[in-house]
Amino acid sequence: MTDILASAQTLKPMLEPRGIAVLGASDDPTKIGGVPLRYFREYGYEGGIYAVNPTRDTVQGLPAYKSVTDIEGPVDMAIMAVPARLAIETAEAAAEKGVKALCTFTSGFAEIGEEGQRAQERLAEIARDTGMRILGPNCLGYFNARNHVYATFSTSLSHGLPKVGNVGLVSQSGAFGSHCFVLGRERGLGYSACITTGNEVDISVAECIAYLATDEHTDVIACYMEGCQDGEMFKQALALAYENKKPVVIQKVGRSAVGTEAAASHTASLTGADQVFDAVFERYNAYRANTASELIDIAYMCSGMCQSGTIPSGNKVAIATISGGAGVMMADAAEEAGLDLAPLPDKTQAYLKELVPFAGTRNPVDFTAQVYNDYSVITKNFEAILEEGGYDAVIGFFSSLLYSDTVSQKVLDSLIPVRKAYPDRVLALSVIGPDQRKRDFEDEGFLLLHDPSEAMKTISAVLQIGAGLARGPYPPAGGATPPAIENRSYNEIEAKAVLDAAGIAASPEKLAGTAAEAEMAAAEIGYPVVMKVVSADIVHKSDVGGVKLNLSSAGAVRTAYDAIMTDCTRAHPDAKIDGILVAKMISGGVEAILGVQRDPVFGPVVMFGLGGIFTEVLKDVTFRLAPFGEEEAMDMIRSIKGFPLLDGARGAAKCDQAVLAKTLSRLSVFADANRDVVTSIDINPLVVLPEGDGVAALDAVILTE
Amino acid sequence: MTDILASAQTLKPMLEPRGIAVLGASDDPTKIGGVPLRYFREYGYEGGIYAVNPTRDTVQGLPAYKSVTDIEGPVDMAIMAVPARLAIETAEAAAEKGVKALCTFTSGFAEIGEEGQRAQERLAEIARDTGMRILGPNCLGYFNARNHVYATFSTSLSHGLPKVGNVGLVSQSGAFGSHCFVLGRERGLGYSACITTGNEVDISVAECIAYLATDEHTDVIACYMEGCQDGEMFKQALALAYENKKPVVIQKVGRSAVGTEAAASHTASLTGADQVFDAVFERYNAYRANTASELIDIAYMCSGMCQSGTIPSGNKVAIATISGGAGVMMADAAEEAGLDLAPLPDKTQAYLKELVPFAGTRNPVDFTAQVYNDYSVITKNFEAILEEGGYDAVIGFFSSLLYSDTVSQKVLDSLIPVRKAYPDRVLALSVIGPDQRKRDFEDEGFLLLHDPSEAMKTISAVLQIGAGLARGPYPPAGGATPPAIENRSYNEIEAKAVLDAAGIAASPEKLAGTAAEAEMAAAEIGYPVVMKVVSADIVHKSDVGGVKLNLSSAGAVRTAYDAIMTDCTRAHPDAKIDGILVAKMISGGVEAILGVQRDPVFGPVVMFGLGGIFTEVLKDVTFRLAPFGEEEAMDMIRSIKGFPLLDGARGAAKCDQAVLAKTLSRLSVFADANRDVVTSIDINPLVVLPEGDGVAALDAVILTE
Repeated sequence: MTDILASAQTLKPMLEPRGIAVLGASDDPTKIGGVPLRYFREYGYEGGIYAVNPTRDTVQGLPAYKSVTDIEGPVDMAIMAVPARLAIETAEAAAEKGVKALCTFTSGFAEIGEEGQRAQERLAEIARDTGMRILGPNCLGYFNARNHVYATFSTSLSHGLPKVGNVGLVSQSGAFGSHCFVLGRERGLGYSACITTGNEVDISVAECIAYLATDEHTDVIACYMEGCQDGEMFKQALALAYENKKPVVIQKVGRSAVGTEAAASHTASLTGADQVFDAVFERYNAYRANTASELIDIAYMCSGMCQSGTIPSGNKVAIATISGGAGVMMADAAEEAGLDLAPLPDKTQAYLKELVPFAGTRNPVDFTAQVYNDYSVITKNFEAILEEGGYDAVIGFFSSLLYSDTVSQKVLDSLIPVRKAYPDRVLALSVIGPDQRKRDFEDEGFLLLHDPSEAMKTISAVLQIGAGLARGPYPPAGGATPPAIENRSYNEIEAKAVLDAAGIAASPEKLAGTAAEAEMAAAEIGYPVVMKVVSADIVHKSDVGGVKLNLSSAGAVRTAYDAIMTDCTRAHPDAKIDGILVAKMISGGVEAILGVQRDPVFGPVVMFGLGGIFTEVLKDVTFRLAPFGEEEAMDMIRSIKGFPLLDGARGAAKCDQAVLAKTLSRLSVFADANRDVVTSIDINPLVVLPEGDGVAALDAVILTE
Repeated sequence: MTDILASAQTLKPMLEPRGIAVLGASDDPTKIGGVPLRYFREYGYEGGIYAVNPTRDTVQGLPAYKSVTDIEGPVDMAIMAVPARLAIETAEAAAEKGVKALCTFTSGFAEIGEEGQRAQERLAEIARDTGMRILGPNCLGYFNARNHVYATFSTSLSHGLPKVGNVGLVSQSGAFGSHCFVLGRERGLGYSACITTGNEVDISVAECIAYLATDEHTDVIACYMEGCQDGEMFKQALALAYENKKPVVIQKVGRSAVGTEAAASHTASLTGADQVFDAVFERYNAYRANTASELIDIAYMCSGMCQSGTIPSGNKVAIATISGGAGVMMADAAEEAGLDLAPLPDKTQAYLKELVPFAGTRNPVDFTAQVYNDYSVITKNFEAILEEGGYDAVIGFFSSLLYSDTVSQKVLDSLIPVRKAYPDRVLALSVIGPDQRKRDFEDEGFLLLHDPSEAMKTISAVLQIGAGLARGPYPPAGGATPPAIENRSYNEIEAKAVLDAAGIAASPEKLAGTAAEAEMAAAEIGYPVVMKVVSADIVHKSDVGGVKLNLSSAGAVRTAYDAIMTDCTRAHPDAKIDGILVAKMISGGVEAILGVQRDPVFGPVVMFGLGGIFTEVLKDVTFRLAPFGEEEAMDMIRSIKGFPLLDGARGAAKCDQAVLAKTLSRLSVFADANRDVVTSIDINPLVVLPEGDGVAALDAVILTE
C-alpha cells in the first residue's frame, strides 16, 4: 500500500498549486487556452496566475511570458494548451521550470494513430525522467472546488459553478465526465474535486481514486471509466478507499459485446475483460452503477449520509406514502432490489391506526391524504416507524406537494424533528417540484429522489455499500503454500495430482498397466469403480469403448481392462496408450465447473458455475480475483442463480458448501502462486457431494505458457 | 366488441358535457367542493355551470340551487362533493334530473369497511337502474383538456395546466394519477384527457381505455392500475385499442409478494394474479411499464411519433454522440434492451471518416467535439446514417450543450433539415439543459430523453410497440372442436385419453389386466415399453416395485407383469389394482411442463416451462390467456430463458417446436371450451422429441370443480 499512497501524494501540487501557468494562453476567453485563465481570475483562485504566450505582450490583461522558464514565482501546475507540434518542447520547458504537474489539454496523441503514439511515448518519458506528473494528454482538465482551481476548458462551468461538497469525481472521458458533473450540479451534489484523465500517459484513474481516498475533504468517490492499464495499482487504490471507509461508485462501460468493441476502438488499449471488473468491484466494495443517473444518485445519497451521520449497514426499509398506489409500486421495486420490507410491530400499527383509521400500517405505510388536515400525523408516523420499527432507511412519498408553498413548508416543518432525532438513518423523500423548494428540504438534511421505484434501487445500493463498509475487507486467503508447477504440459492424471496436492480433492484413482494392476487398484480404491483409457492419441474415448462405468467386482474390472485394450487398439492401431485409469465411481452430488483464466490486466481470475446448461446456456457463472479466502469463496458460491441446487432445492441433500468454498479458495491460491506459468485451468466437472462428503474433481486441464 | 363500444360511448357526456353541476359546491375555492367550480370558470369551460348548495344563496358569486332538480338547463355531468351520509339521496336526485354522468369525489365507501360497502352497493344499483354513469366514488375526478372540463379537486392543476395533446391517461389511484399527470406536464407531454376511477362502482379503467381508443383526439393511452374486476371487458378494451392502432402503456403494480399484499389491502378486492396480467398485455400489445418515469417516457415518445409520423416497426438503431464514452455506455444499454445496433455500411463509414478523420463510425458513431467547429457535420452525419443505414431510430447524445444559447441554436438548426426529411423515423436526443431550450427542440419535432442509458430502454419499448402495431393481433386459435369433459374426477389414463382426443399426444399406452394382455399391448405399441401399476391406493409406485422400465421382449413383459403384481400386493394387500399400464418407453427429447390454471378474473390461463430446475428453481415459466393459436404459442415457447434447450443447444437435436406449439394451442382451446368445469390441468412431463417426432405427454392430471 506504500506505493499507491506515495503516488497519490504527488498529485497534491496539482490539486493545491501555489502558482499556475497557462502555456499557450489565449487572449480570447472562449478558446481552449483562454477559458481556464478566465476561470482562475473570475472564480477567485488566490495563487499566482501566469500567462505564457511567445507571440503576445499581454493575455486577457495579464503580462505574457515568452516561456514558462521566464516566470520568477513558483509554478506548481501548468496547463498545456499548445498545438501538438509544440507539446514536447513545451513539456520539457515546464519540467525545467520545476512544474510539479502538467495538465495537458493538447490533443493529437495516441488517439490519432502511430505518429501520435510516438509523441505520447515521449511525453511519458518526460514524466518518468523528471518526476513532473502529467494529466492527459487529450483531457478536459480538472477542478478543485475548495480553492477555485478550475483548470479546465469545459464550458459547463460557464453556466454554473459546483456546490462545494464532499464528492470527488474522476472520469477517463472528458465529455462524459463533464456530463456527469452537470448532472450532479443539477441534482444539488456538492463536489470536492473533479478530474478527467484523458489518454492517461501518466496519471491514471487509479491514482486519482487513491488521492481522493486520502483527501480529507472527500467522503465519497464517483468514477466513470472505460478500462484500466495497471490492475495492481487500481486494486490498491480501491483497497485504500475501502480501508479509509469511503464509499466508491463506479460506472465502468463496455459491458456488452458491441460496447466492448466500441470501447476498444475508443481507448485503443487493453482494458481487461468486463466480467473481471465485477470481481474487482466486488472485492473492494465498489458499487458498479449502470447508468449516469445511477452514478450520480448513489453518490448524492452517500454524500448526504456521510454529512449527517454514517451509512447504515442493515437492509431493513420502511415506505411511508400519501398514496396507497405508490406504496404498492414501491414495494414491488423494494422486493426486486432485495430490500427487507419488514412489517411494523403490531403495537406500532395499532398506534398508526389510531392516528388515521383508514391508514395502511403494515409497511408500506399509507397515511393517506389525511395528513393535509393534520401535519403532525407525518411527524408521528415517521417517529413511530423509526423508533419502534428499527429501520435502516425510511422513504416518504409526497408526490408533487412541493408545488404548493404552504403545503411544502408544513411538510418540511413536520419532518425536521424526525431528521434531527435520527441522524444515523437514511431519510429519503420521493418528491417532484420546483428546484428551490427541493433545496429547502436538502438544506435540512433530507435526501431527495425523483422516481419512487428507482429510489428503492438507489437506497438498496447505498445500504449495500454501508454493509460492505461495516463488514470491512475480506480476510486474506490462508493455508499451506501450494505446489509450484513447471512450465510444461500436464496430462489429466498429472493435472489432478498437482491440484490434489494444492488442496483440490481429486476422485481417488490409479493408473494401471495390466489387468492385475487394475484389479489391485480397484481393491484399494473401493468398488464400484470406473475405468478410462489414458492416451493423448484417443480423443473421443467413449466412442471407441475406452470408458467403462460402474464396475463392481474384480472380475468385471479384469474383463473391462481387456475389452478397453482390445477396442481401443482396434479403433486406433497407432495410438500410444499410457495405461488405464481406475477411479472411484462417484454418484450423486451436483456437478460444478471451476476455472482459472489469466486476465491481461488483473492476473489470474477464478470462475465458478454449475455444470451443463447452467454454464453453457444460462451463462450463470461468477468470477473472483485470485487469491481469496473461504469467506469470499462462500459469497461467490451464493451469488449464482443456481445456488438453490447446492442448498437442497427440490428435496435433494444439501451439498458440501464448506468444502467447496475451501476448494475454490485453494484453487485461487494455487493460481496466484503459479501466475507466471499457468495460463488457464479447467476443472470440469467437480462433483459437490452431500454435506460432509466433500468434493471430487473428475477431470482437470492445466495449460501453461 | 359491440358491448365495449356501446359502453365506451356512454362516457361521452362525461368528457363532453353540455352543462355541469357541482353538488355540494363550496364558496371556498380551495375546498373539495370549491376547487372544480373555480377551475371551470377560470380555465374557460364554455357550457352551463351550476352550483348546488341548499344552505347558501350564492357560491363563488354564482346563484346557488337548492337541488340539482331545480336547474332548468341540461346537466350532462354532475360532480358530487357532499358528505357520505348525503351521497345516496344526492345521486338519486341527479339521476332524476337526467344527469348522464356523476363524478363522485365523496369518500367513505368500500374503502372504510362494511357499512361503506353497503352504501357503495346502493350507488351501483342507482347506476344500473337509471343508466346514469358513476365515476368513483372516492376518486379525484378527471379532465378533458380540449374543452376545459377540469372536473377534479387535485391541486396539481393550480400550479400549471396541461399542454393539450394526444395522450389519454387513466389511473385507478387518484393520488398516483395526479402524480403521473404532473410528471408528464414537467416532461412537456400533451394530454387529451385524464381520468381517475377510484373505487370503480360503475366506470372502470377498461371502459376509459375503450373510450380513449375511440376518441379522435387521443393517439396514445397511458394507464396506471392495481387490479381489474371484469377480465372480459378489460380484454375487449385492449383489443379495441389494438385494432385502432393506438399504443397502450400500462403500469400495473403488485408484481411482488409484498406489493400484491399491499395492493390487496389497498383495493380490498380480487385483482387477478399478477403474472396473468403479463399474458393479457402480451396478447394485446400493451407495453408494461415498471416505473412511473418509464410510463411517462414511453407515452411521451409514442405521442411524438404519432404526431410526426408513425412508430417504426423495426429494431435497428443508430447512436450518434459527441462523446465516445457515452457511445460505449449507450451501446451497453442498447444490447441489454435487445436493440439491433447494426454497423453502418462501409461506404457510409468511409464518408463519415472524411468528415471527421478521428470519428468512430461503426455504430455507435462518435463525431467528437469537432462538430462545434463545423455544425454542418451534424447534419451530414445524421443524414448519412438515416439515408444509407436504414435505421428505424437514431439517438443523438449532446450532453449539456443546451446550457449555451449559441451552441444550442446551432445544433438545432443543423438538425431541423434531418427531422423534416425523415418524419417516419424515431429521432431522439439525450440532452440536459434548461426547460425552455428543451421546448425549442420539441417544437421542431425532436424527442428528448434525459439519461442516455434509460433512453435506449425507452426506444426499445417504443419499437416493440411499433412492431406489435405493424404485426396486428394474433390470428385466433383454429382446429377441431375439443371434447367436452364432465364434472367428475379423471384418473391418469382417462386424463391422458381425453387430452389425446383434444390434440395433446399421449405416449402410446394400454391398460392390461393379465400378463397375456400386457404382452399383446407391448407388441402393438412396439418395444421397448415401460409398465406401471394403476391403483388409486398406491401412491409411491416405484418404491414398492410398481414400475418397470425399458422392457424389450415379450418374456420381459410377462415377468414384469407378475413381479409388479406380486410386489404391489405384498406391499399393499388391500389396494384395489385396476391393472398394469403398458406404455411406449420414451427416451431422448426435452422435458416440458404444461399447465392450465383458472384465474378468477381472466379465466383459463396456460402455463409453459421446461421440467426440473427450470420450473422449480429458476421459475422460468410463461403464461398466456386461453384460447390462442399456434403463432402465439410459438412466441410463448421462444420467450422462456431455457429456449436454447429446445433449439439445439449444446449440440443436441433441435426439438419439434412446431408440434409443441400446436399442442399448447390445442391445450388452450380445450381449457377454454371446458372453462366452466376444469379448474386446473397439469401435464408433467410432456417430452418434446427431436424435430419430426412430435411430443408425448407422459403424465397428466385434470381437476374439475
